Amino acid sequence: MRRIVILVEAAFTLHRAKTATGIIRYSKDKVVAVIDSTHAGKNVAQALNIALGEDIPMVRDINEALQYEPDALMIGIAPVGGTLPPSWRWQLTTAIEHGLDIISGLHTFISDDEELRTAAEQKGVTIWDVRRPQGQPRVAKFAPHRPGSHTVLMVGSDCSAGKMTVALELERVAAQRGLNGSFLATGQTGIMISNNGLPIDHLISDFVAGMVEEQVLQLAEEHDWVFVEGQGALNHPGYSPVTLGLIHGSAPDAMIFCHLAGAKTIDGYENCPLPSLQRLISINEDAIDWIRQDGKCKVVGLALVTVGMNDEEAQAAIKAAEEETGLPTTDVIRFGAEKLMDALQQHFSAH
Amino acid sequence: MRRIVILVEAAFTLHRAKTATGIIRYSKDKVVAVIDSTHAGKNVAQALNIALGEDIPMVRDINEALQYEPDALMIGIAPVGGTLPPSWRWQLTTAIEHGLDIISGLHTFISDDEELRTAAEQKGVTIWDVRRPQGQPRVAKFAPHRPGSHTVLMVGSDCSAGKMTVALELERVAAQRGLNGSFLATGQTGIMISNNGLPIDHLISDFVAGMVEEQVLQLAEEHDWVFVEGQGALNHPGYSPVTLGLIHGSAPDAMIFCHLAGAKTIDGYENCPLPSLQRLISINEDAIDWIRQDGKCKVVGLALVTVGMNDEEAQAAIKAAEEETGLPTTDVIRFGAEKLMDALQQHFSAH
Repeated sequence: MRRIVILVEAAFTLHRAKTATGIIRYSKDKVVAVIDSTHAGKNVAQALNIALGEDIPMVRDINEALQYEPDALMIGIAPVGGTLPPSWRWQLTTAIEHGLDIISGLHTFISDDEELRTAAEQKGVTIWDVRRPQGQPRVAKFAPHRPGSHTVLMVGSDCSAGKMTVALELERVAAQRGLNGSFLATGQTGIMISNNGLPIDHLISDFVAGMVEEQVLQLAEEHDWVFVEGQGALNHPGYSPVTLGLIHGSAPDAMIFCHLAGAKTIDGYENCPLPSLQRLISINEDAIDWIRQDGKCKVVGLALVTVGMNDEEAQAAIKAAEEETGLPTTDVIRFGAEKLMDALQQHFSAH
Repeated sequence: MRRIVILVEAAFTLHRAKTATGIIRYSKDKVVAVIDSTHAGKNVAQALNIALGEDIPMVRDINEALQYEPDALMIGIAPVGGTLPPSWRWQLTTAIEHGLDIISGLHTFISDDEELRTAAEQKGVTIWDVRRPQGQPRVAKFAPHRPGSHTVLMVGSDCSAGKMTVALELERVAAQRGLNGSFLATGQTGIMISNNGLPIDHLISDFVAGMVEEQVLQLAEEHDWVFVEGQGALNHPGYSPVTLGLIHGSAPDAMIFCHLAGAKTIDGYENCPLPSLQRLISINEDAIDWIRQDGKCKVVGLALVTVGMNDEEAQAAIKAAEEETGLPTTDVIRFGAEKLMDALQQHFSAH
């Protein structure tokens, strides 16, 4: 178990902090402090105005964080474009000087930065660039999964719609029910949490589907349930290729659709309105049928993110989505993932 | 104008030689010989049993090719996985020793090979890895094209369905008609031909759509017609993410659908049958509507590859496709691209 300090300087809003909150919620490592000078003096729950179950201090900078005796500094935001903000460099240098390992999910690899790499080598600390792909490039073979295994892919209406969280909560419920389940991380936070997975958004486009397929085939060999973290959305103008690679590469047997309640457009693309939930669900189901043509893979449940609502509002949003789509719906953070796991088990026992 | 020898050792079938035939047909460079020991002594037209308009000798190896005084050796196949066949290494070494530049479209970069790079540096020759991306990573902005410009994307039922050829032939017809057209290469052969473009299948998946968008926005600023080379197919189990990145990134105003007449499955995936032409066309039109939702971008014509058929058979295949889809259809190699350019001009004058 590592003792981690997470660096999110001036970016610790609930929306942008999804790496940090994911690590705090799901990692086996202990988060000892979070660096954001604009929130210094608060704790994490106060800064985000959500319950996180632990009293983690927010601090001004790496120097203040050192009193909590961290052994790793994790970069906790994923900016568009994915480069290291120049103003953060001194904090990484200071961390390395004090013997902390560096964990980064940025597109730009910290270990390719000569100054930081040299400093890390001299100090004997490790730089883990989570997005650096492991494994060999591989084109998808369109190979069948082990019969009897169930691969469940999270899809959704946009990025940051809860796809990783839903997959992790489903894995948890499956374990509670004594099922042999597994989680396949496909993004930097999921990989940091599970210490494994595939940085799908950093793969070469020709090999996205093939490298996902390889991981899923192996997990489906060893597990009865494979919960695949989704990425992006088919209706996202920038990230749709990543999503389609996941759909075709993982070749799911069922999907859970994830959605931020109330969202009207793709985040950051005000000129790109979201289609209706019904339409979004059929888009995702249709995309699998482009290659498999058996009409078997369905969205069997919806997961809403209802953060910022009270319980009554959340229940109303869930009820509205159920009426619109006819599918079991919940918010897994608020109400757990049991309802979705029920839907999945019923779906597979009926088919 | 370079004098090029193309290396395709033991792979010079019509199907696998698409880089070589593309270069021979469309490049401003002169192909002086093609290396394939299994065809040595023939010329290219005899080896492929097609008319290529020039008498290009097939030779045993690089040593035999040197008599034709080439100044560059081009690797003329694109194997799955994209690495240099080990048995070809000596031919590259020999070429470099004799002062030839190296042009390669492989996924594995020749200039990353220490032995070959060192040899090239010592000899002062250039290694051009066509698939090494130029330009900065960039996420798509979903920005509109210049009003009045027409972006036309080639899509299709599979790889090797003529998408590059159709784009190049449309550019040629547009020029003949005095229109201000341009060709955007998106694959290694197209880039070798036009000395420009984007190796889309080698881009990082997060940036595929964005980097295509950047190129198209710029071309649409300067040209009235932008003919975008397509890649792969939405119904291809391995390469579909590349195709969707092209569709969403280029945000076409119209599409031409390309198809190998008579093909029943994805090439190399006998368990992946092709949907009907009607269904394939609607899949591609629908994918744009996921983000644009205006229903405006249509497939306005079909281009068949009818190689191996006689003219009568080709005409029958074209007629059958026209009856099935209701769209103007031709084989651009056999009958020219005028019919498709007519369809495009009519489409845009009517809308």
